[in-house]
Amino acid sequence: MGIALSIENPKPEVEAGLNDLVALVADGMARVNTTILSRTGSEVTMIPEVANHLIASGGKRLRPILTLACAKLCGYAGDTDGDVKLAASVEFMHTATLLHDDVVDESDMRRGRVAARIKWGNEASVLVGDFLLGQAFRMMVEVGSLRALDILSAAATVIAEGEVMQLTNAKNLETDEAAYLAVIRGKTAELFAAACEVGPVLAGRPEAEQAAARSYGMSLGIAFQLIDDVLDYGGTSAELGKNVGDDFREGKITLPIVLAYRRGSEGERGFWRRTLQQGEIRDGDLETALDLLQRHGALEETVARAHHYGAEARAALDVFPDGPVKAALNGAIEFCVARAR
Amino acid sequence: MGIALSIENPKPEVEAGLNDLVALVADGMARVNTTILSRTGSEVTMIPEVANHLIASGGKRLRPILTLACAKLCGYAGDTDGDVKLAASVEFMHTATLLHDDVVDESDMRRGRVAARIKWGNEASVLVGDFLLGQAFRMMVEVGSLRALDILSAAATVIAEGEVMQLTNAKNLETDEAAYLAVIRGKTAELFAAACEVGPVLAGRPEAEQAAARSYGMSLGIAFQLIDDVLDYGGTSAELGKNVGDDFREGKITLPIVLAYRRGSEGERGFWRRTLQQGEIRDGDLETALDLLQRHGALEETVARAHHYGAEARAALDVFPDGPVKAALNGAIEFCVARAR
Repeated sequence: MGIALSIENPKPEVEAGLNDLVALVADGMARVNTTILSRTGSEVTMIPEVANHLIASGGKRLRPILTLACAKLCGYAGDTDGDVKLAASVEFMHTATLLHDDVVDESDMRRGRVAARIKWGNEASVLVGDFLLGQAFRMMVEVGSLRALDILSAAATVIAEGEVMQLTNAKNLETDEAAYLAVIRGKTAELFAAACEVGPVLAGRPEAEQAAARSYGMSLGIAFQLIDDVLDYGGTSAELGKNVGDDFREGKITLPIVLAYRRGSEGERGFWRRTLQQGEIRDGDLETALDLLQRHGALEETVARAHHYGAEARAALDVFPDGPVKAALNGAIEFCVARAR
Repeated sequence: MGIALSIENPKPEVEAGLNDLVALVADGMARVNTTILSRTGSEVTMIPEVANHLIASGGKRLRPILTLACAKLCGYAGDTDGDVKLAASVEFMHTATLLHDDVVDESDMRRGRVAARIKWGNEASVLVGDFLLGQAFRMMVEVGSLRALDILSAAATVIAEGEVMQLTNAKNLETDEAAYLAVIRGKTAELFAAACEVGPVLAGRPEAEQAAARSYGMSLGIAFQLIDDVLDYGGTSAELGKNVGDDFREGKITLPIVLAYRRGSEGERGFWRRTLQQGEIRDGDLETALDLLQRHGALEETVARAHHYGAEARAALDVFPDGPVKAALNGAIEFCVARAR
């Protein structure tokens, strides 16, 4: 879904929002990284090659950071490494999704590198994704929490459902805001929610705190994806960067498009139908699309929606006592939302 | 891997070997089938469409039958439906593998029907496979046995490793018998082994019985795949049926090829290199391949190997008391091995 692309080179002031959280879980993340490296190991050498091509290429590891932080927020002692293993599982589930997405999207690039499917073929992307999913479940089993297993296995099915929904909606301009939200809840926000929810579960906290952590993750994930979809059109500053227009070329119906289409004249709708529905894209069409998105305030409004979900995420944390972890989790909201500036 | 193709229309006397086992677990399998149908359900209608296209098209459901039978062999009471849910999980893992294999193999046909990837695209095959894997793990979590979860999640990684190994060996005539065996242990026999092992685990039987059931499944799975690879060249009767030569056209290095290549003259090796390694296949090449396989007794010797593993499977059952379930499990060995006649 191109989620990771846009956080490669964030502006320094935006990155600052995440710094506190990164610092708070630095020890745990060092162990997560060691775990990731050891669990991609296999005598079948193509497996670590393909897995590490993607894993080593970076990304902020936002999801495992959230698992560690939510466990810490709930006072998880951490002497059994349960948080580290679940955090690594979450990252493996994410990596497996990216590998499979590349096959689905027929992507050539991922995180600024040639996609694994181009270098090793679709086969390797599918199978190494399957291997990582299996390893994710093995680690969850080692942790031994059936409740955490339940949450993460349910997330695996919901993610797949969201991706299939996106496939069904592709090139379909009748997609409305509700259908778009259902897709991003599944494909993106569900894993954020599960990554957060397993924190209080590990710490043995009451259901209200599990639900609150889940709700924080869900709203944060929605905000994150909304901004990602804005960034795919270069953000609201209208500076044309790298990778702008991928969604446009793939006919993905994201919220900016839903809004601009609904507000457009009959002539504009014809433009969207030709480009997104029929996939007939000519020179200058991306510039026209950007112009229409600007004219109808579609990018600004999508950012406003992200701010709304950011506020929901902040409110979800109310049940937790104030402190450095809660403050840093709020900083992560700023990071996710402010990327579009 | 084309595993299921060859058991579509077995000869009546061969099928008889499986009849007793099918009859013994008929009640459980009826519940497995209901579970499979309900767990492929999703509001995202493309998911049940794709899943049922493959699931409803048959196959003998040998793997879930083995789970039910091994639980029964160990006296599992079954009032909690744990055996039914694990059996359905095993079938979902198998179905997910078939869907992903079709993308890997670029297959056009599966179980005598158009492959899902042709009808709905590679994307749908990848994502619906992921959905079924997720559902498989959810059902395992419901059963609540961490040991069963451990066995089946480990199997998921080993299957993927076997498939990647096969990818690495493809078109490589230096593949020897040990490398071939490592591939089929992973891609086929591991799921047979896990399907059997969870039976005594559910019934709370001692480790010796878990290991025996695993060993039975492993040897049976190896025998099954050896015969499958013989059937891909039409069996030892040399009657040319449907789907003969798929492995040949894909450059798969199966045991018959390993044996014929090793025993071949320099000229014959040139033939195998041109067809399998360089993929340059001309009219009449399949007939030449069949002739070489016959001349070197490669198909008969592969069948003999299958008989050896069949005997190992039979021996593994020694620790269990005689009775109708054990007799029927022995019948399943006959079924797997006799298909090549």
